[in-house]
Amino acid sequence: MQVAVLAGGIGAARFLKGLVDVTTSTHEHKSITVVGNTGDDIRMFGLQVCPDLDSVMYTLGGGADEERGWGRQDETFTVLEELRRYGAQPDWFNLGDRDFATHIIRSQMIAAGYSLSKVTQALSTRWQLPLDLIPMSDDRVETHVVVGDSQSGAKKAIHFQEWWVKHRAELPAHEFVYIGADQARPASGIIEAIRDADLIVVPPSNPVVSIAPILAVPGIRAAIAQSGAPVVGISPIVGGEPVRGMADQCLQAIGVATSAQGVAEHYGRREDGGLLDGWIVDSLDSEAVQPLQAQGFIVAETDTIFSHPGVSNAVAQLTLDLGRAVSTTRSSGQPTR
Amino acid sequence: MQVAVLAGGIGAARFLKGLVDVTTSTHEHKSITVVGNTGDDIRMFGLQVCPDLDSVMYTLGGGADEERGWGRQDETFTVLEELRRYGAQPDWFNLGDRDFATHIIRSQMIAAGYSLSKVTQALSTRWQLPLDLIPMSDDRVETHVVVGDSQSGAKKAIHFQEWWVKHRAELPAHEFVYIGADQARPASGIIEAIRDADLIVVPPSNPVVSIAPILAVPGIRAAIAQSGAPVVGISPIVGGEPVRGMADQCLQAIGVATSAQGVAEHYGRREDGGLLDGWIVDSLDSEAVQPLQAQGFIVAETDTIFSHPGVSNAVAQLTLDLGRAVSTTRSSGQPTR
Repeated sequence: MQVAVLAGGIGAARFLKGLVDVTTSTHEHKSITVVGNTGDDIRMFGLQVCPDLDSVMYTLGGGADEERGWGRQDETFTVLEELRRYGAQPDWFNLGDRDFATHIIRSQMIAAGYSLSKVTQALSTRWQLPLDLIPMSDDRVETHVVVGDSQSGAKKAIHFQEWWVKHRAELPAHEFVYIGADQARPASGIIEAIRDADLIVVPPSNPVVSIAPILAVPGIRAAIAQSGAPVVGISPIVGGEPVRGMADQCLQAIGVATSAQGVAEHYGRREDGGLLDGWIVDSLDSEAVQPLQAQGFIVAETDTIFSHPGVSNAVAQLTLDLGRAVSTTRSSGQPTR
Repeated sequence: MQVAVLAGGIGAARFLKGLVDVTTSTHEHKSITVVGNTGDDIRMFGLQVCPDLDSVMYTLGGGADEERGWGRQDETFTVLEELRRYGAQPDWFNLGDRDFATHIIRSQMIAAGYSLSKVTQALSTRWQLPLDLIPMSDDRVETHVVVGDSQSGAKKAIHFQEWWVKHRAELPAHEFVYIGADQARPASGIIEAIRDADLIVVPPSNPVVSIAPILAVPGIRAAIAQSGAPVVGISPIVGGEPVRGMADQCLQAIGVATSAQGVAEHYGRREDGGLLDGWIVDSLDSEAVQPLQAQGFIVAETDTIFSHPGVSNAVAQLTLDLGRAVSTTRSSGQPTR
């Protein structure tokens, strides 16, 4: 069995831990390909920082600070403290010492001519990842946020990280633009992984700044649409709020309700040209089940809070099961309601 | 009064501390320009490392680990440990976390188009250096060591740091070559500082790998020769041994005796086309005084071990005094013996 997963940061990483657990506990050969978001990559102090790829790599490799939600566990911040004493800018982005090592070696390899996907593969070797982690593209794609200048009212676009980290997503966003996406090509292996997948998963990542940049790379959305595999998503919105992060600010900017139902409708039903066949909502969002089923989504509900014991495995198992249910429904031609 | 100092690493840095101390305790305006060796600069993990410039900067700025002789005090090595876990090469060069910050910001500025001397000036600002630290050249000059291959006997050139750090200077050296020196230009301000100096100092740095690369930059040796200022050196050899480091291995390779007398004769008497007017030897090397005086060097002896209390100030004061003695002797036309 082959699974392709579109991944943002820590939410996707925690889902993937469960997926690895439940798939390795069976005897069937399984392979997981992760298509990692690189839209929030940024050059910091001359180094190439890939927050989402690293969240997946560190979490699956057992080196993440899952509590903080980014970076390495047992982290120290000596390099950053020294950089700030030199007056280095920007001063609003945190990078730990262990994390710096990743960015240093990545930048060195990129400067030596290796593609980001080759570099990611090399870095993953150390972490002995139980899956294939591939950046969505080796070409530069940057998520920028169009904000209104509070003084003049004039609009300007700033890097997603500046909006997210420096401004804590508090500057009202008018629009998200994925700079470079129109010229970007999917990294090698992605289209094949989607084409050959038995299941495609959209984990509980931010729809606007984690999943949308991946889908903005020409060819990826079409490959999903053409794939015979069921597409199952997990809602990143629980009880009307993002589980972590500030997805509500992002959804609001694009006119999507911050709800399990709103996000599913935003992704759209596959048969109507959208992304999803199945959708998993949290038990707190039961009210979304019936309306979504009425629209033809195949919906399941469960506890989706990954910090609860056993939940990431349970959600992963339910994702696999829902994928099978989609296939069954399709071949029988019957909706499940 | 203006002093120009050719500087290697920690030996020069400790001398400079004394020089700053004794010159700031007088009311006369004094300025010190340090011409820093960059021949042992090396790119490590894609970052530009300048060991000698940093030794001077950290020591004068109060941030050096003077006991270890390189790098920062209160240093940690988390980044390097992580790089090694990624299998990063080379694995024989040590860089601390605080030190990494210097190399990161330096590399970022150089990549942005700033010259090494502009970058050095910017970095020095943080340290509030009481002197002007200028790299000998903004052009790349690399000291390489010609060694014999122990298997085949064939010669090859390796970077000085590889010879010094990886091989602990134990590979017999045939020759030292300063790659790029013939095309290098002195950094802005150096020729003027030498021309306008009232005193030029050659501190107790390694003659072969710290001072020689500076003198290999076209124009610097000539500017010293043409300067009206006395040139006073301090022997880096005490009691027939280098005070620290492995200068003996370097001197042996170029056929110079590891002695206070040998190094003075290697530098040469200025009136004979050499570098020095005056030479300070350690009290352990009294036997060098008479033969050197007989050759026309103006020689003084004192305790030169900078780890002894008060010694760097005393050596600096003696250097200033010896400079005056040289000027007096010159104007009277009388040698001092």
